[in-house]
Amino acid sequence: MRGEPGEGFGIENLPYGIFSTVGTTPRVGVRFGDRVLDLYTVLREEVFAEPSLNAFMAQGRTRWDEVRRAIVTELENGDRSEGAFHPVDSVRMHLPFEVADFVDFYASEHHATNLGRIFRPDAPPLMPNWKHLPVGYHGRSSTVVVSGTDIVRPCGQRKQPDESAPSFGPTRRLDIEAELGFVVGAATELGQRVAPDEFADHVFGAVILNDWSARDVQAWEYVPLGPFLGKSFATSISPWVVPLAALDTARTATPVQDPDPLPYLRGSQDWGLRVDMAISWNGQEVSRPNYAHMYWSPAQMLAHLTANGALLSVGDLFGSGTVSGPNRDTWGAFVELSDGGTRTLGIGGQSRTFLEDADEVTISASAPGPNGSRISFGEVRGRIAPPRL
Amino acid sequence: MRGEPGEGFGIENLPYGIFSTVGTTPRVGVRFGDRVLDLYTVLREEVFAEPSLNAFMAQGRTRWDEVRRAIVTELENGDRSEGAFHPVDSVRMHLPFEVADFVDFYASEHHATNLGRIFRPDAPPLMPNWKHLPVGYHGRSSTVVVSGTDIVRPCGQRKQPDESAPSFGPTRRLDIEAELGFVVGAATELGQRVAPDEFADHVFGAVILNDWSARDVQAWEYVPLGPFLGKSFATSISPWVVPLAALDTARTATPVQDPDPLPYLRGSQDWGLRVDMAISWNGQEVSRPNYAHMYWSPAQMLAHLTANGALLSVGDLFGSGTVSGPNRDTWGAFVELSDGGTRTLGIGGQSRTFLEDADEVTISASAPGPNGSRISFGEVRGRIAPPRL
Repeated sequence: MRGEPGEGFGIENLPYGIFSTVGTTPRVGVRFGDRVLDLYTVLREEVFAEPSLNAFMAQGRTRWDEVRRAIVTELENGDRSEGAFHPVDSVRMHLPFEVADFVDFYASEHHATNLGRIFRPDAPPLMPNWKHLPVGYHGRSSTVVVSGTDIVRPCGQRKQPDESAPSFGPTRRLDIEAELGFVVGAATELGQRVAPDEFADHVFGAVILNDWSARDVQAWEYVPLGPFLGKSFATSISPWVVPLAALDTARTATPVQDPDPLPYLRGSQDWGLRVDMAISWNGQEVSRPNYAHMYWSPAQMLAHLTANGALLSVGDLFGSGTVSGPNRDTWGAFVELSDGGTRTLGIGGQSRTFLEDADEVTISASAPGPNGSRISFGEVRGRIAPPRL
Repeated sequence: MRGEPGEGFGIENLPYGIFSTVGTTPRVGVRFGDRVLDLYTVLREEVFAEPSLNAFMAQGRTRWDEVRRAIVTELENGDRSEGAFHPVDSVRMHLPFEVADFVDFYASEHHATNLGRIFRPDAPPLMPNWKHLPVGYHGRSSTVVVSGTDIVRPCGQRKQPDESAPSFGPTRRLDIEAELGFVVGAATELGQRVAPDEFADHVFGAVILNDWSARDVQAWEYVPLGPFLGKSFATSISPWVVPLAALDTARTATPVQDPDPLPYLRGSQDWGLRVDMAISWNGQEVSRPNYAHMYWSPAQMLAHLTANGALLSVGDLFGSGTVSGPNRDTWGAFVELSDGGTRTLGIGGQSRTFLEDADEVTISASAPGPNGSRISFGEVRGRIAPPRL
């Protein structure tokens, strides 16, 4: 999936990120091929000199479209902007936006079914509410980190079924969840609902998201108020925010939804997305999920999230939940690939169920673009550092 | 509990808030009796001209103590600061800080037991994890509002046990949760754990918190990932942040914790708090919870929250969960007082189970201070506005 260095970063894509070079402060860049365009030097607007995308995103969809056209014009008149480019290998990428509220959904029927079987073996795997609403919960905003940040193995309370009491120590079941994350650019007022067809008026773009999960901590803590410390230690995102406009060709219908969703979750636009993802564990590809299998679309997630009048802030991030398809080679979490830790995977000549210290996971993604092009999301990468005891 | 206008706001208290007067911008004030001291006009530091407490709180505990001493000195030399006072009735109060991450705990054994019986009548009311860790979850930061903000009745999916499918509409079971909220002033780095005895190095102060809850929405959505839209529409807090230093006299041991908490949840300092709360429904007092009954202390909550290395940000807010004591007249939520909606309460000659439109709820609180004084938290108040359909 990696291909040539600049592959998937053609003029059809143009994702935004925050970069710096040696001795300069973080600012807005646009990736084009294997180079980064310093946007402030060509467009001379203060929002592009900021160390996050928030100020630009807050300007709203009309402005997003204008800037996208302006960048295309700059690139087509290449001479003028030549000095504004940096080789992508020479820049440091930062967290692309300040995260306001972070919500994570659970929108893959295959993942929810697999996890239901593992966590609640004696009950029906899908809860009665699952096909009526996109199940979601709030996560911790302050621990969203950019790709490349080491993930320190978290400590927490864990209790095995055969233990009489919990103990505190490093998680023994450190896992990933391969997701897409959606970034809100345009805020709303308290009380305002966002209909599914208003999705593109509010969502600026998408990233790859790895929702690192300590499964033993999660299993012990999560009833009845949901995941907490099993998730809140770190969530990694890719540095390039792919504009929603670049995903037009990738749009597709969701799988058939039965029963019919309630009216507030219905729209006339398709917001399923044909995004191919690939998960590599220490360089070895272990799964290829595709976002097109997701039961709930991100437009439905946003409509649900705001159905009670909760407001959106610039920089809100919501994750899709693990992208898992129907077959084992399309599952997006190691708890699924290892059948809840009962089946080992051969990784680089070693056997694995969950992550060991020094392991590295890379999730990459790309989508079909116009005229046979590809739209790359780049990758989100993280290496496991030993616990702090 | 209200007493004289300035009662509970003596020199032993000195809570901070953000106020404005007609034609002026919001800035830091300190409440003293029935007046508000404009802190910038006497101390001349930029952090007190800010529209939130965050910049001041970020300066850390040593500075908090210095400023508290400086305010006492100012008040004792009353002449100098006379022009810096505004009558409390003439100012408008604003949200006192920008909320970073919001976490809500569930730390009353009585509340958790009562809710377990109502939500899961066929299972043991307390989950096996409950006495081993302070159960908590993340809530929505952007919908934390200041006392006095109207609460629009939220819409959402609700399904009665006798209905075959859910419907979308205004909640029929709108409830409160009377809590204390703790405000983090001093941040930490990713990976840093905060021990229970380091509580006062990080927590700046406390507020009264009303965690408005749509019980029908919550009951349908919350398995398996916890409360989401049943809570995220609004959380109200009182405008005055009571400094932790003002709560010294109120500190007490928690109830006996059995089994012994794991070492990371143990400290040598008592952080149980003798805070008397009173809940009024349309002006009629319906309950008087006391915080001293809470099983887990806020210092244990903070230690748990950071046990996995999750960082703290300036402005993090964590709620205690509903403050309910052993007896009915000390329960902190209407779902408890109405036995899950099966028992009506007489309120002003009308009968109630949950909130009707135009109902108003006020939660007040105070604690013992030094030399027989009282430390008032003031109140958090909210009126129910009709739903937006």
